[in-house]
Amino acid sequence: MPLLVMKFGGTSVADLSRIRRAAERVSDNVTNGYNIIVVVSAMAGKTNELIASVTGTSAVYDAREYDAIVSTGENITAGLMALTLQDMSIPARSWQGWQVPINTSMVHASARIESIPIENISRKFTDGMRVAVVSGFQGLSAEGRITTLGRGGSDTTAVALAAAFNAEQCQIYTDVSGVYTTDPRICSKARKLDRIAYEEMLELASLGAKILQTRSIELAMRYHVNLRVMSSFDENHDVHGTLVCDEEKDMENKVVAGVAYSRDEAKLTLTSVADRPGIAAIIFGALGDVGVNVDMIVQNISEDGRTDMTFSCPTNQLPLAQKALDAIKFGGKLNYSELLTDVDVAKVSVVGIGMRSHTGVAAKMFKVLSEEGINIKVITTSEIKISVLIDRKYMELAVQILHHAFGLDAVENNSVKSH
Amino acid sequence: MPLLVMKFGGTSVADLSRIRRAAERVSDNVTNGYNIIVVVSAMAGKTNELIASVTGTSAVYDAREYDAIVSTGENITAGLMALTLQDMSIPARSWQGWQVPINTSMVHASARIESIPIENISRKFTDGMRVAVVSGFQGLSAEGRITTLGRGGSDTTAVALAAAFNAEQCQIYTDVSGVYTTDPRICSKARKLDRIAYEEMLELASLGAKILQTRSIELAMRYHVNLRVMSSFDENHDVHGTLVCDEEKDMENKVVAGVAYSRDEAKLTLTSVADRPGIAAIIFGALGDVGVNVDMIVQNISEDGRTDMTFSCPTNQLPLAQKALDAIKFGGKLNYSELLTDVDVAKVSVVGIGMRSHTGVAAKMFKVLSEEGINIKVITTSEIKISVLIDRKYMELAVQILHHAFGLDAVENNSVKSH
Repeated sequence: MPLLVMKFGGTSVADLSRIRRAAERVSDNVTNGYNIIVVVSAMAGKTNELIASVTGTSAVYDAREYDAIVSTGENITAGLMALTLQDMSIPARSWQGWQVPINTSMVHASARIESIPIENISRKFTDGMRVAVVSGFQGLSAEGRITTLGRGGSDTTAVALAAAFNAEQCQIYTDVSGVYTTDPRICSKARKLDRIAYEEMLELASLGAKILQTRSIELAMRYHVNLRVMSSFDENHDVHGTLVCDEEKDMENKVVAGVAYSRDEAKLTLTSVADRPGIAAIIFGALGDVGVNVDMIVQNISEDGRTDMTFSCPTNQLPLAQKALDAIKFGGKLNYSELLTDVDVAKVSVVGIGMRSHTGVAAKMFKVLSEEGINIKVITTSEIKISVLIDRKYMELAVQILHHAFGLDAVENNSVKSH
Repeated sequence: MPLLVMKFGGTSVADLSRIRRAAERVSDNVTNGYNIIVVVSAMAGKTNELIASVTGTSAVYDAREYDAIVSTGENITAGLMALTLQDMSIPARSWQGWQVPINTSMVHASARIESIPIENISRKFTDGMRVAVVSGFQGLSAEGRITTLGRGGSDTTAVALAAAFNAEQCQIYTDVSGVYTTDPRICSKARKLDRIAYEEMLELASLGAKILQTRSIELAMRYHVNLRVMSSFDENHDVHGTLVCDEEKDMENKVVAGVAYSRDEAKLTLTSVADRPGIAAIIFGALGDVGVNVDMIVQNISEDGRTDMTFSCPTNQLPLAQKALDAIKFGGKLNYSELLTDVDVAKVSVVGIGMRSHTGVAAKMFKVLSEEGINIKVITTSEIKISVLIDRKYMELAVQILHHAFGLDAVENNSVKSH
C-alpha cells in the first residue's frame, strides 16, 4: 500500500477538536488507500510550559532530564491522536520515539537522527494497522536515554520517517496555507508559491521564515523527499499548498522566488582595527566562544594598516557580543578604537535559484532601493541569495518594492485570501 | 552502601517548591550515607487532567493509549526531581518505567509487576550515582508498550523496588503523618500508631483507608519489606510515622488496632429467593460479570424453601447491580419476590490481629452499639476484622464509641496535633 507521512504542528493539535479535525484529514487519505505515518507536535503552548518548569528547578540544568521532561508533550498528543483515529474506526496506535526507535546522537536538546529501523512499524502495517502516530521531536540515544531534536524538530522527524519508509510524500500541516513570495502581513500582494526548490526554501528558512526547520529541508533535499507545506485550517481541504522539491526545468520561470526580511538584527562596527592576519579569527573566535551567531560580515579596505570591521548578530545577543569584545580589547588581544552599535537596522533578502543563471539581480536590487533613497549599510551574497542591511524604518517599503520589481506581485483577481 | 526507597505522592510533589522540599528529605538521607531510589507520583491533579483528555476523545478507549498518555505525568515529576537533586549537587538521574525496566503483565490500566531487573540502576550506583528517581505507577509490557498499575500504583512501584533491591526500608511520604487508630476528622481522640501489622493495614486499606494501595501492602507482606508511612509536610522531619511490618510479640498490646468506616455502601436485599444449590452462584456471577464489587453477603435462614439474600456494594454501582438483577429475573434464571435497596447505610469495622487470640471482641462490639440504640443491619467477620452495616446517621457516633470502648483513645497530653 502506498504510504504518506502527515505532520501536524502545535497549533494544528492545540485541543481535542483540532486533533479531531486533523484526524479527519488523515481519514481522507486512509480512505484513498494510503497507509499513514502521522507525526505530531506537542499541543500549542505545552512545550513552553514544560520548559518553564525545567528552568524553575535550576539555572543550569541537565539536558538529559530536560529532554525526558519536554518530550512528554508529544507523547500526550500522539496518544490522543491514536484514540481519536480509533474512535473513527481506523486501526491506529501511537509510537513514542524510543518505541520506533528513532535512533539519534547523544547531543541532548539538539540531537541528530542517525537511523530509523522500519521493522516495528512495518510489521504493524502488515498486520492491518493503517496509521502509525509517531511522537515528533524526540528520539533515543545509544545510552537508552530520551533525546530531543531542538525546536521545530518534528519537521525533521517527519522528513526522516518519509525517507526511511520511502513515502510518496511528506505533508507538513501548519497554520499557513503554503510558502509565500513574502510575508503577506507586510506586502498585500504576496502570492502563494505552488513550488519552491529545496535550496530556496533553505535560504528562506535560514532568513527567518518559520515554516520549516532548516534541518528538515536539508534532509528532504538529501533524500529527495517530496515535501508539501499546507494549512490544516483550510476548510476546503486544499491538497496543494506548496511543494518543496528538486529544482526542475519547468519550475516557475522566475529569477527571484521570494523576498525575506528579519527585524532581529543588530549591526556592530569595530573601528580602526589593526589589519593583520589572524585578526578576524580573534574577533569571531571570541564571539563564537560565547555563542553569538554572527551573520553578515564586511571588512573595509585598509588605510595605514588599519581597517573597520562590520558585522551583524541577533539583537538579543548584542550585550553578549559587547562583553566579549570588551574582554579581548582590555585583555590586550585586540586593538581597536571604538565599538559602534546600531539596533535600528533590518535585513532584507531576495532569494532565487534563477540567480545562478541570471546576472544583474544584485544591480537591479541596489538600483530599486536607491531610487527610493534607501541607503544600504551592509551587503552579503550567496549563490542564490542577496541580503542587505538597511535602516529598519525602510524595511516594509523595501520588501514591497523588491517584491514588485522582481515580478512577484499577485495579479488582481488572484490576490491572497488568507494567511 | 545501604539503600532506601522513598516514595512521594502527588500532594508531596504538587509544585516545584514542594519537589524541593521532598528533595531536601532525600538529601538528608544521602548525607546519612544511603543510596536512594526515589519513586514519584504525578503532580497533584495532573493525572486527572490527562484522564479528562483521554475520555474527551472517545467514550470507549484503548487502554494501551490511555496508559501511554497518563504515564507522562510521573515522567515529568521524575525529571523535575532529578534536576532539583542535581541542583543540590547530588548525583541523580530519572528512570522511566521502560528504562528500569519495570516489567509488568499486559493488562493495561491495571497491570501487575512481574519482575524488576536491578542491573541498570545498580550499575549507575556503582558509578557514583546517589539517587535514582523512578517514575511510579508505570511499567513495560512484554510487547514493549507502556502499562500503568492502576490508581495508587506508585506505592506498589516503591514496594516492588524495595523488594528487588533489598532496601533497608521503604518510606511512603504522604500528606498524613502516619496510620491512625481511626479518622481524626471523625474522632478527635484518634491516635497515630507507631506500628501496625501488614494484615491489619491490609484490612484497613480494603476498608477505605486511602493511605496505601492494597497491592503494595500485599507485596510488602510477601517480601517482608519494612514500610514506613510518614508525612512530607512535617517541618520537624519526624522520621517515625507508622511502621508497617511483620506482627511481633512486642507489638502494641491491643486487641483492636483501629476502627475504620465507609460511607460508600449500598445495601441490597432480594426477598423470597428459592433456596437451592447454585442460586448464590447465579446472583453473584451475574453481578461479577458486570463488574459490581460485592462486599458483605448475608443469607437468612430458609423458610418453606425460600430465603432472603442481603449484600452490599459501592453506592455508585447500585444502578449496575439493579440492572443485572433485573436481567436475570426477567431472563428467567432467578426467581425472587422483590429487590429492596437502601443507600442510607454505612459500614463500621474494627480491625486487629489481637482478635485471633482474644474472644469476645464481636460480643463487645455489638453490646457497645446496642447500648447507644444503633441497629445492626448486616454483619461480616474475618479472622482479624468485624464489620457491621448500620444507618448512616449513626456512623460517626459508632466510630467514636468503638474507639473509646476498645481503649484506643489518645491520652489527654498526647492528643493528635495534626492530620
